[in-house]
Amino acid sequence: MIEKNIIGFLLSNEGDSFTQGFNPESNKPLIGNFSNATFEEVSLAVEKATEAFDTYRRVSGKQKSFFLNAIADEIENIGEVLIDRCCEESGLPKARIMGERGRTVGQLRMFANLIAEGSWLEASIETADIKRNPIPKPDIRKMLIPMGPVVVFAASNFPLAFSTAGGDTASALAGGNPVIVKAHSAHPGTSALIGSAIMTAAKETGMPDGVFSLLHGSGKVVGQSLINNPGVKAAGFTGSQLAGRILFDLANQRKEPIPFFAEMGSVNPVLLLPTALNLKTAEMLSTSITMGSGQFCTKPGLLITLENDLLEKFIKDLSDELEKIEPSVMLTQKICKTYYKEVDVSLSNHDVKVESRSQEKNESNIANSTLVSISGKSFINDPKLSEEIFGPYSIIVKCKNKEELNKVISIIDGQLTGTIFGSEDEIQSFNFSINQLEKKVGRLIYNGVPTGVEVCSSMQHGGPYPASSDSRFTSVGTMAIKRFTRPVAFQSWPNSQLPDELKNNNPLNIWRLLNGDFTKE
Amino acid sequence: MIEKNIIGFLLSNEGDSFTQGFNPESNKPLIGNFSNATFEEVSLAVEKATEAFDTYRRVSGKQKSFFLNAIADEIENIGEVLIDRCCEESGLPKARIMGERGRTVGQLRMFANLIAEGSWLEASIETADIKRNPIPKPDIRKMLIPMGPVVVFAASNFPLAFSTAGGDTASALAGGNPVIVKAHSAHPGTSALIGSAIMTAAKETGMPDGVFSLLHGSGKVVGQSLINNPGVKAAGFTGSQLAGRILFDLANQRKEPIPFFAEMGSVNPVLLLPTALNLKTAEMLSTSITMGSGQFCTKPGLLITLENDLLEKFIKDLSDELEKIEPSVMLTQKICKTYYKEVDVSLSNHDVKVESRSQEKNESNIANSTLVSISGKSFINDPKLSEEIFGPYSIIVKCKNKEELNKVISIIDGQLTGTIFGSEDEIQSFNFSINQLEKKVGRLIYNGVPTGVEVCSSMQHGGPYPASSDSRFTSVGTMAIKRFTRPVAFQSWPNSQLPDELKNNNPLNIWRLLNGDFTKE
Repeated sequence: MIEKNIIGFLLSNEGDSFTQGFNPESNKPLIGNFSNATFEEVSLAVEKATEAFDTYRRVSGKQKSFFLNAIADEIENIGEVLIDRCCEESGLPKARIMGERGRTVGQLRMFANLIAEGSWLEASIETADIKRNPIPKPDIRKMLIPMGPVVVFAASNFPLAFSTAGGDTASALAGGNPVIVKAHSAHPGTSALIGSAIMTAAKETGMPDGVFSLLHGSGKVVGQSLINNPGVKAAGFTGSQLAGRILFDLANQRKEPIPFFAEMGSVNPVLLLPTALNLKTAEMLSTSITMGSGQFCTKPGLLITLENDLLEKFIKDLSDELEKIEPSVMLTQKICKTYYKEVDVSLSNHDVKVESRSQEKNESNIANSTLVSISGKSFINDPKLSEEIFGPYSIIVKCKNKEELNKVISIIDGQLTGTIFGSEDEIQSFNFSINQLEKKVGRLIYNGVPTGVEVCSSMQHGGPYPASSDSRFTSVGTMAIKRFTRPVAFQSWPNSQLPDELKNNNPLNIWRLLNGDFTKE
Repeated sequence: MIEKNIIGFLLSNEGDSFTQGFNPESNKPLIGNFSNATFEEVSLAVEKATEAFDTYRRVSGKQKSFFLNAIADEIENIGEVLIDRCCEESGLPKARIMGERGRTVGQLRMFANLIAEGSWLEASIETADIKRNPIPKPDIRKMLIPMGPVVVFAASNFPLAFSTAGGDTASALAGGNPVIVKAHSAHPGTSALIGSAIMTAAKETGMPDGVFSLLHGSGKVVGQSLINNPGVKAAGFTGSQLAGRILFDLANQRKEPIPFFAEMGSVNPVLLLPTALNLKTAEMLSTSITMGSGQFCTKPGLLITLENDLLEKFIKDLSDELEKIEPSVMLTQKICKTYYKEVDVSLSNHDVKVESRSQEKNESNIANSTLVSISGKSFINDPKLSEEIFGPYSIIVKCKNKEELNKVISIIDGQLTGTIFGSEDEIQSFNFSINQLEKKVGRLIYNGVPTGVEVCSSMQHGGPYPASSDSRFTSVGTMAIKRFTRPVAFQSWPNSQLPDELKNNNPLNIWRLLNGDFTKE
């Protein structure tokens, strides 16, 4: 395991402070002292990335796809060592981590396929019309190009799929940008193993020195130095609203502001319409609330219902289901402490009623699930209750009538997802409410749970602030690449000098918009 | 002419301060006292827009296209009154204003066609695979939806095409967003005439009250109040870097930050390669530098050359051509004063040599064209010289060799455009330089001038900061609509309840990405 910073193909440990991994259950330190990057090491990583960009931006989609596939292969080659270390550092169960590794290499291969095929870059061609009056129309062609060095902030809750070689890194590399990862301090060993795999893959496939770096250290020192470095041209972040906003503000206050995409979680409201108040719904929701100790950004943390004969029975069912589920360890001791503190804040509202708490385990860092309920009126009066609590907590809001339910929807912030449980007839009759919800979310789900984010072209993972910093982009799925690419137009450019993507004879055989129609011609 | 603020279908003059138009040549006031909006009127406009959004976001593309076409018709119906007023307020010649009116109604009709056809909203469908292991794949469909009330800041230099019914307004309305325009204080009468046309068109086509508002007043009071209003969800701006940055900062410092697209101009470097140093190039450039009194955001303000036997002759040709062109009036007296002040700053560098100045006209507010030259070395030492001077000014940088030329390219900021004059062989041999330039621009032009921005799907008008605030978007062409729209995904949504754009049978017959391929099926 490499304990130094990975700066391109250089291993470097100039600093005198270190990050150590901990087992979140026992709080015992794990093997490895990971050297925190100094300011000079941060600068060196950006310099190398800037230099690598000149080469990497000209590497063909096919060549880049070999690189991404090689990363996936190298990650698989690490084998059990990776799974064991990741479980130890995150406290997440082996099955989950194996699944997450599958998703991580799947994402890398998905982006490899995307760029090998090539149509993603939105090639658009409008041919000249020299006879047009009063002025001739020039030939104009456009495609997406990379932006430059991208900084990726690894997430605590996805040590593989949203960390060193996760969705942000994969999409930024696929787009043609060198990447500098700020390792998450909760899983430095996992980061180092993956970082090493990426370095090996870069060498194997002939990528330039500096195309990838991995730096250890705090968000405050290393993270902020990275964002303030003029060589950095964009960034991706997954984490808390507090940390995300600090970095977002820095990114925008630069002399040259840069796009900073932050996915900052959400309460993911669920609208439970009358016909859905049954045991099946309770089962699905209990699993979704507690999965991964409730540490998913799409965890359903707010259940909006109408007072109803079936409601109390449903709450009893959901409580029973939640109590059946064994409480589990959280990612870090700090996260667990925050969870209990935030639950206490919720309970300090005297109108909040505890419906169920999973059995106390009296073990360090175990999160007991908590289900509470409140009236619509009281919920509306306490804005704090509509904020995310990271962990296995959810609040049921009992609304007197449709009007109150609409009021509840109107006061909640931007969300990653909104879910509707009910019949098709109910969708019709709650049309107004669903329209209001649509204005606040990035994804609407019908009769399913918001957790389990499908990685595909049609996915939208990102929503109005504070769910994400820019609702026009997604951090999951192929379209995540658009965060780190920008259009460039070529006017009257000689055919021989155009990028292959825009040449007359379409040598790459990609989909292009030609004078307004999609074609592979 | 309506002298009140247009707030939806309400005319309102609650304030006690006014904006007046001036003839920039005579500095004489023009008819009309336009009521500046009060804070309450700003709030009312946003409230009405928010309410209108609930209706307008559900209006079909076809219906919205009737609205946009009606705006175009109503603008044409104003007739000579509009042309006369616009010429009086802007000092621009009649032919230019008539052309600009053509472009304005052309843009409106282009967006009308775009939304009537419907493929612009990037419908993407991935169908379910219930047999997938280990977990079934859900059905996921995505499309672009509007964001909410959009504020448009009208530009000084395009009183029609980038003002009240210009590209920002047309693209925001086309995307399904209500629009509030902050009228430019230099052409309140033109704004009022166009605002009235939009109001009439909205009524005629049954659009909701509040879909459009036009407010008079200063950027500092009315503009900033608009950006700080929580109901506003995005904004578009064309103007100076100073004003753009102030508003950009406010937009990002809000509790809920919003996308603020600012197009802030650029020096538009032109690389003059040896074979291009001829009379034809000089003729093209002289027209481009002085067109509209040099007040185009794409005016070529920086000509980069290599020392060469032909260079002095070329500079003489360009000087002669510039001197042949009659100096013309600038948009406002303030802009003209700033122009001369900035030219003086340039001339205060003792290495700057005046190559030509058009004949002094000794008339108020007339901008004499100024061509200066400087060595590459001296240019590199004075960063001020690479900043935009708004007006008919350009600087020729004489580089000793390729290395110095590359250094010049390396120190310039982000640009809307970069232009290459030369042979195809030269493009090849200056490959490195052009690649460096590509990293800094939104559009590359070959053997043509950057002024004259074609309005089409392949246009990119926007570039790395400070040319624009976000290089991933354009303010010209159909894709300008993407600044004001965001994706929303529908997961496992019943077919009957999906928007028509995403229904199984594709009732709108639009291009969609279906399981990875473009089709109209």
